[in-house]
Amino acid sequence: MKSEHVRVLTLLSDFGDRDTYVGVMKGVIAQINPLVTVLDLTHQIQPQNKAAARFCLMNAYPYFPSGTVHVAVVDPGVGSVRRAIAVEFADGFLVGPDNGIFSGVLSQSPLIAAVELTNQEYWRTPQPSITFHGRDIFAPVGAHLASGVPFKQLGKLLDPATLVKLDIAESSLTETGAVGCIQYIDHFGNLVTNIPESYVQGKTWYLEAAELTVPGCETYSDVKVGEAIALVGSHGWVEIAINSGNAQLQLLLQLGDAVKVIKVENR
Amino acid sequence: MKSEHVRVLTLLSDFGDRDTYVGVMKGVIAQINPLVTVLDLTHQIQPQNKAAARFCLMNAYPYFPSGTVHVAVVDPGVGSVRRAIAVEFADGFLVGPDNGIFSGVLSQSPLIAAVELTNQEYWRTPQPSITFHGRDIFAPVGAHLASGVPFKQLGKLLDPATLVKLDIAESSLTETGAVGCIQYIDHFGNLVTNIPESYVQGKTWYLEAAELTVPGCETYSDVKVGEAIALVGSHGWVEIAINSGNAQLQLLLQLGDAVKVIKVENR
Amino acid sequence: MKSEHVRVLTLLSDFGDRDTYVGVMKGVIAQINPLVTVLDLTHQIQPQNKAAARFCLMNAYPYFPSGTVHVAVVDPGVGSVRRAIAVEFADGFLVGPDNGIFSGVLSQSPLIAAVELTNQEYWRTPQPSITFHGRDIFAPVGAHLASGVPFKQLGKLLDPATLVKLDIAESSLTETGAVGCIQYIDHFGNLVTNIPESYVQGKTWYLEAAELTVPGCETYSDVKVGEAIALVGSHGWVEIAINSGNAQLQLLLQLGDAVKVIKVENR
Repeated sequence: MKSEHVRVLTLLSDFGDRDTYVGVMKGVIAQINPLVTVLDLTHQIQPQNKAAARFCLMNAYPYFPSGTVHVAVVDPGVGSVRRAIAVEFADGFLVGPDNGIFSGVLSQSPLIAAVELTNQEYWRTPQPSITFHGRDIFAPVGAHLASGVPFKQLGKLLDPATLVKLDIAESSLTETGAVGCIQYIDHFGNLVTNIPESYVQGKTWYLEAAELTVPGCETYSDVKVGEAIALVGSHGWVEIAINSGNAQLQLLLQLGDAVKVIKVENR
Repeated sequence: MKSEHVRVLTLLSDFGDRDTYVGVMKGVIAQINPLVTVLDLTHQIQPQNKAAARFCLMNAYPYFPSGTVHVAVVDPGVGSVRRAIAVEFADGFLVGPDNGIFSGVLSQSPLIAAVELTNQEYWRTPQPSITFHGRDIFAPVGAHLASGVPFKQLGKLLDPATLVKLDIAESSLTETGAVGCIQYIDHFGNLVTNIPESYVQGKTWYLEAAELTVPGCETYSDVKVGEAIALVGSHGWVEIAINSGNAQLQLLLQLGDAVKVIKVENR
Repeated sequence: MKSEHVRVLTLLSDFGDRDTYVGVMKGVIAQINPLVTVLDLTHQIQPQNKAAARFCLMNAYPYFPSGTVHVAVVDPGVGSVRRAIAVEFADGFLVGPDNGIFSGVLSQSPLIAAVELTNQEYWRTPQPSITFHGRDIFAPVGAHLASGVPFKQLGKLLDPATLVKLDIAESSLTETGAVGCIQYIDHFGNLVTNIPESYVQGKTWYLEAAELTVPGCETYSDVKVGEAIALVGSHGWVEIAINSGNAQLQLLLQLGDAVKVIKVENR
């Protein structure tokens, strides 16, 4: 292993922070290569929520150095027949279960190759736990990849067309604007829709959701403290927020609720 | 960038741990310099609570190596006219919004210089997100500073007298002891007042809050398990605790509640 | 300090993530040696829960590199007469209070030596805070140990027989199988018993708890989604889980509840 091969490795999971599952994955990585820089994306994905894992990976991926290895373990099918995979892109790698959590990144970037993780040489043990592939397969494979092991040595090449895709609601343009839904709710209670920033411009729009009509703006301070606002969030999606408040608690909207963008000449 | 310039960088925010906002800031830092050591102070500041951010920064600042860069993002005014700033001290740096969260550290240590972050060369992009300056301005500026960029290249010098101060309740000495209030409540439910350790000595005092009278002691085991006690916490402030219990839950006191120190000859 | 002595250091505590207590310990470590790799085991041990700390340390210990220093601070007796200690094993070190939290690791591995941390040269200050030995004794001693300070310089040798043991319920084999209890509940609501994997085999058993009978299986997908299952968890203990669900919430079992393994010929 040469030092120029040492890379950044990120971890994302639904393991929470109460147990030592995440710490143990970091220990396994350090056993293989203590010089890998391990960064947490989040471990608070709601248990088994593949859609949230997909959303978080997709939005975080662009902000890491070239060559970063992203290990993601939201894995309700662990121990069943779902495949363990790795995917190579021009600027990074994904390692985890083939259950759709990578389909967001895959929709944004062309892949170079995908493999099934069949080479047990890079596992922690040839007899992995049936319930914790994060520790026994994904973290060690990620550590080896971050240490310079060639991608294709990890297992047998896959047909990329066979990778599992999540069935996610799509937004679409309409004559009067766009329709979509709420795809994610963040820590601040911001309601993130699946409408991309390219569908709206400046302040020439407003947003409808349930009985509510919310002005499309550019920054929180375009409305008074406590008022609702629609704007493009830092992730590039239209979101509903409350200036200095919590939109989820105050507007009573939920994951999956329909939203509509209405374009106007001027407001 | 020379290796001797590589420093520790801390992050403090109100971003919580559910999303990838913190992970993305770490990715941006690693893109600039993967050798910066990034340490979390906390990301669980209550949303938009500048007073808690001020308290946490002030108490943590002295425990980091000389040259540490502290990046703090509790920023309800993001996208409005509040300034983005950095402050230089003899033993470290602060980077974040000019909204008062740094006023605790500033009250403890003499600053060397302060700048407004106007030099876009050290931002992630000249068109920063209107809602996430942590990612696009503060984290990248912090990473450059931790990598040896001279402080004054970050922007234009500010008059330190113009830095925003939080309007925080002050404690004061009285003829019989001191008066103050509860300024912070920690994870254990300890009620931390704004009365500094220099106002009390040994066991020659007790504390009054609402209807309660609590003996001033030196360590938890000076009272029985389950009993209330006042003592100087590790941060240097008088606090009310319960030996092996949670004072917030058991004593029903709140942030801002008045407290009084009464000195006695002997108890 | 030579670079070959730089090691991994883990932190475990009941400090939570709301305050800067953990960040401050990392700052103190970085002041001593910024090259130590610090990894979090967990900081969400329930306040003062020594049994959970013991369980987490015992299960995580085997997954770290040789020479790792584990600093653990679940310390209800801080400031009282309990000893501050370090323990040396062939493959790692423990540093923390002598209150039983290390008794799980000690039951698994033969120790080489144990010391009381009496050498103030390796403390942060000769006048440590009476409430935060994590910052003033354990973290700095751990950092020095991870930097190559010889173990026996940390203080005076202890008789290992005097180390405090937690009084933990033990499981035992019976004529028909085994009896034990629930010793830990994880983030997913999995109910982890104190029955070791060596007590069960394949699918030739079932488990009884309260009014429930749960089949012993090998992987979640051996039962339908939403059904209860008993299996050996990744930590090596028999646990009760719900396929894609939360056993704690659905089965209403608690810490300490009795469980019984019944062996069968075939099921």
